[in-house]
Amino acid sequence: MTARRDHSKAGAGRTIISIDAMGGDQGPATVVAGIAYSASKNPDIGFIVHGPKEELERLIAKRRGLAERCEIRHAPEVVTMNDKPSHVVRHGRDTSMWSALESVRMGEATVCVSCGNTGALMLMSVLRLRKLPGIYRPAIAVMWPSKNPQKHNIMLDGGADIRADAKDLMQYALMGASYARNGFGLERPRIGLLNVGTEEHKGRAELKEAYDLIAANARIADFDFVGFVEGRDLPGTKCDVIVTDGFTGNVALKTGEGIAKLIADLLREAFAYSFLSRLASVLAYTSLARLKKRIDPRRANGGVFLGLNGTVVKSHGAADSMGVSSAIKLAFELAQSGFSERLAARVASAALLDQDAHPEPQPEAESE
Amino acid sequence: MTARRDHSKAGAGRTIISIDAMGGDQGPATVVAGIAYSASKNPDIGFIVHGPKEELERLIAKRRGLAERCEIRHAPEVVTMNDKPSHVVRHGRDTSMWSALESVRMGEATVCVSCGNTGALMLMSVLRLRKLPGIYRPAIAVMWPSKNPQKHNIMLDGGADIRADAKDLMQYALMGASYARNGFGLERPRIGLLNVGTEEHKGRAELKEAYDLIAANARIADFDFVGFVEGRDLPGTKCDVIVTDGFTGNVALKTGEGIAKLIADLLREAFAYSFLSRLASVLAYTSLARLKKRIDPRRANGGVFLGLNGTVVKSHGAADSMGVSSAIKLAFELAQSGFSERLAARVASAALLDQDAHPEPQPEAESE
Repeated sequence: MTARRDHSKAGAGRTIISIDAMGGDQGPATVVAGIAYSASKNPDIGFIVHGPKEELERLIAKRRGLAERCEIRHAPEVVTMNDKPSHVVRHGRDTSMWSALESVRMGEATVCVSCGNTGALMLMSVLRLRKLPGIYRPAIAVMWPSKNPQKHNIMLDGGADIRADAKDLMQYALMGASYARNGFGLERPRIGLLNVGTEEHKGRAELKEAYDLIAANARIADFDFVGFVEGRDLPGTKCDVIVTDGFTGNVALKTGEGIAKLIADLLREAFAYSFLSRLASVLAYTSLARLKKRIDPRRANGGVFLGLNGTVVKSHGAADSMGVSSAIKLAFELAQSGFSERLAARVASAALLDQDAHPEPQPEAESE
Repeated sequence: MTARRDHSKAGAGRTIISIDAMGGDQGPATVVAGIAYSASKNPDIGFIVHGPKEELERLIAKRRGLAERCEIRHAPEVVTMNDKPSHVVRHGRDTSMWSALESVRMGEATVCVSCGNTGALMLMSVLRLRKLPGIYRPAIAVMWPSKNPQKHNIMLDGGADIRADAKDLMQYALMGASYARNGFGLERPRIGLLNVGTEEHKGRAELKEAYDLIAANARIADFDFVGFVEGRDLPGTKCDVIVTDGFTGNVALKTGEGIAKLIADLLREAFAYSFLSRLASVLAYTSLARLKKRIDPRRANGGVFLGLNGTVVKSHGAADSMGVSSAIKLAFELAQSGFSERLAARVASAALLDQDAHPEPQPEAESE
């Protein structure tokens, strides 16, 4: 089994993606515009779209041919960015986010996409989809721009859980390796463990323990462990996947965003400074546009929740239609590769190496 | 008392800075070039320079007039970047780093500058200079480029200690506020506490405790506490000083460096792409040079060790002569403002607020 295909409503033989149309900063019109763009680019995607029925029908009807590709599921309520996750999971049954995850839980779609409140989406995903057998802590995998051939590195955890012990970090390495293999097509991804120095004697105790656990799993899980890496390697070429706890990962992610924004602002000011520099900006327009595309978080949009029964792609809250479409593209690729099933098999085989765990044999797990 | 002035060798009435000439990646010639540049710009600095006597004499003699401004202290050995800090503090008595700190310990200079191994410099500084009364953990304060009027924000701890509990974070806030007041001339610096979100319910338990401690000290210590801030606020305008533990701070710092380097590389490639873009880069040359100067870590060079009896400025290991000169300039400014004494007074007054500590009254402490 790879991706689940639906033969009823949203189109015969299509890969079905479940979309939470609400909760993004830009509103459902932007999400529907992103759906329309993806639909026009890729005839093999079908959509189940969750939100207030009348509003969605109106927005979808405006786009030629889109109604035939979308099944609308009515959900009258919206999770806002300010809602407390614990409140949402208790009282959020009528929200579009709940409904979108339900489609994955019921097997109507393999991947869900949402621009909503990250904390609520994570907590709800864990409670409704449940963790994969053997997974201690799910993680959010995020993309960094880099000069590696695949143009992006993967970091996890980007902020699902502020804690992570050595075993969690080892599982993040396994999940990150699987993601890099299925998302980037890398046969033997290079994994690094984030620390304050590359020397083995540096850093917190749990990092030294994680170092040994990850090294012990490298051969069987088919990745290269490059050892400790530093903050500068997140957008670097030393490895493809960087493993860290969700606190450090989240701070690093937002720091990178902040520095990129500062440089963009200062670059804009520099080009506006004089007649010559304004002329230069006109001449360099296409080159700068190429650079922007390379760095643009919209292009690498989509943190992916790993370690659950089903895959959830969290799009940036401020994502525009291009950002939503990028997230849908990623969701489609992961669904196509049967990523979730492969990841489950990988974790099951690694659990055999973990002396504290005694997993049941899982004969139905496929090899990756 | 403000800065210590020496009336003997290095020049009557000058502010004396102690310089470790060895241990940087570029060698002592670069350090001496930085000293020469600072000496030519500022007639009020005198230098005690530590390293192998003959080599330093030769390098200094090449620069006209520099020999009269420098007193050389012979130290035959060098701390390398690969030396383990614990080994260096046991066996490093003949190193230039040890000798440079000794000048501060003996009161010959108020500030020491070194490009050497950060871990060794920190450990040796703590052991030889000793912590200020009432300080639990010293910290390294580093600069971030920002669009605040002073053009830089201060973050601490940049990596002196990978741990920090709530009380340490509170002291970092006090030390950071003092540094911002003396280094930037800000009357009421705005302090932020780094977390994964700005909501009060988010983050680790010690951060919530630190939040309350810092808030309780804001009035008496004369700073504004803006509460939790995120990674994107490190180079932002929301506050002037950002407080975090040395693990998170070090990862954030190196992440920022990595992203800035990636963007610079991609910008260079973008401008080299076509004839038009190469022409554009010529036209925009001065604007881009201005931007580079703004972001250039050499200009904001100098992490400062806070919380010791005496101030230590750690220059970047890869610093060129301009970088060394920037670090000397910062050292001079801090020496001039009597920063170390003011910081001690500030910590003493804050200790009165700390219910677990019972400090002796310190009648000789000056008001800031």
